[in-house]
Amino acid sequence: MKVRMRVPATTANLGPGFDVFGAALSVYNEFEAATVENGKGGKIVLKGEGKIALPKSEKNLVWQAMKETFKVLGETKYNFKNLNITINTGIPLSGGLGSSASAIVGGIALANALCGLKLNKSQITELAVKIEGHPDNVAPAVFGGVCVCSKNDQNPHGEILHLPVPKLKVVLCVPSFELRTKRSRQILPKCVNLQDVVFNTSGVAFLTAAFCTGDWTLLKKGTQDKIHQPYRGKMIPAMNEVLRAAIDAGAYGAYLSGSGPTLAAFCDAKKAETVKKEMTKIWKKESVAVKSYILDFDKKGVERQS
Amino acid sequence: MKVRMRVPATTANLGPGFDVFGAALSVYNEFEAATVENGKGGKIVLKGEGKIALPKSEKNLVWQAMKETFKVLGETKYNFKNLNITINTGIPLSGGLGSSASAIVGGIALANALCGLKLNKSQITELAVKIEGHPDNVAPAVFGGVCVCSKNDQNPHGEILHLPVPKLKVVLCVPSFELRTKRSRQILPKCVNLQDVVFNTSGVAFLTAAFCTGDWTLLKKGTQDKIHQPYRGKMIPAMNEVLRAAIDAGAYGAYLSGSGPTLAAFCDAKKAETVKKEMTKIWKKESVAVKSYILDFDKKGVERQS
Repeated sequence: MKVRMRVPATTANLGPGFDVFGAALSVYNEFEAATVENGKGGKIVLKGEGKIALPKSEKNLVWQAMKETFKVLGETKYNFKNLNITINTGIPLSGGLGSSASAIVGGIALANALCGLKLNKSQITELAVKIEGHPDNVAPAVFGGVCVCSKNDQNPHGEILHLPVPKLKVVLCVPSFELRTKRSRQILPKCVNLQDVVFNTSGVAFLTAAFCTGDWTLLKKGTQDKIHQPYRGKMIPAMNEVLRAAIDAGAYGAYLSGSGPTLAAFCDAKKAETVKKEMTKIWKKESVAVKSYILDFDKKGVERQS
Repeated sequence: MKVRMRVPATTANLGPGFDVFGAALSVYNEFEAATVENGKGGKIVLKGEGKIALPKSEKNLVWQAMKETFKVLGETKYNFKNLNITINTGIPLSGGLGSSASAIVGGIALANALCGLKLNKSQITELAVKIEGHPDNVAPAVFGGVCVCSKNDQNPHGEILHLPVPKLKVVLCVPSFELRTKRSRQILPKCVNLQDVVFNTSGVAFLTAAFCTGDWTLLKKGTQDKIHQPYRGKMIPAMNEVLRAAIDAGAYGAYLSGSGPTLAAFCDAKKAETVKKEMTKIWKKESVAVKSYILDFDKKGVERQS
């Protein structure tokens, strides 16, 4: 038996929506699991971006997520040695584009398919959040579109609000250097100045209203943040200049994707090339090598390919 | 010459929208200024709720706002002694219903009318924020409806986002005790736990989406707060119980209005009487005397009556 799943990249926070907002984007990882005779498996084949960087052992996050899913579903038939896994990564690693969330969601979806699709999308999300810790990348990776996540003690994976999916392009600038998510989280103060909270509160309202109404002019204010970007920005050369260049080039809004270092901008299709060029130009001046992408929002989330 | 202005009550914060969200309600203060021969003026006549509590001297906030407006407009013809002011207050004082904002907006609007309406609504808001300090009550008092205010250094009265006005009832329970706005602000921590910021971030998104889409079920989560209500709640007996009673009686959401002590709930017209009864019942058990109101959203803001 062979199953294949496609999982979109995700961009989280979107400026003021720290740990709450996430959106799925049209670049994908593909995950395949093939059952083989016991003992002949245990191979992890890597293709694409992750070819060098991802572990090929049982530590691989896709297998870890599969194993957890088999456990939850009470399925004992499968183990590392009777499965071969192929990972074809289109999503840049460690860029703030949800590659870990994608691996977890991919692994759960593969195992779920092998077990006869016992989990629905909400249950996949719940399990993925249990493994990942945060719902803001996981939810859009599962459902696609734009998600607002709310965790609470009663409901650890949170109630998810799905906002209308914008007909906008998302320009991504992914620099060559890495920023460890853990370090990028540690740098944040545990305690936020009340005035900064007020600033972000209005930002979140503008961001939400932009998606709900299609008034993209609200995104300029709606992508501004004082909670996490100023701190993470210290580890990212010329972050504010790149974001400003996007706005000056006609983007509606620009922000740090997830915990970075990828920077992102929302714009109309006809402005996308210019926005991409102007953002890239700043980083090139700073001698930062950068890959850039012009993407759409993904509407489907995790999807079975075969 | 005689001018008369009507200014709505306002309810601020709406749960997670601390210092940012405000809405105008269908209970009003009326302010009248009549020009008289110099020396025969300087009378402030009080009617309604504020009869006893408001100062009749030049310290009166309505006159202070008028004086400031004359100054800004370069008008030297009017002074305290050639004007008589009548204030008919329908808005409960010191209840967290924007009675100060109403007095300031009323005073500015009166002076503006006497000077030939040189200020538009945005300019009235700007001047009122300069006097009041915060835009969240001022903006809806001027414009009506539901306002999202954003202050920043460049723009101290802030960009104002007007959300669609809901066809919902607002139930208000105004207890007999007073809570000084200043004290109610001092009690707030200067620094907010990051987890509480994340909690409120999703709340603000739900609140905004509810108003934008008319999906009132989002208001349950969209009126929850961890930034100010838990602290102010310590000064308000049985606050959480009253808010819970509103939800249990069928309200979509319930929150502390402004800096309190008024508690408010959003609900359908057919549930309003029950919600009011159940909220009031809890406070009566606690021996808190309470006045309650079933109101609509005001759509007009400050309006000239004659």
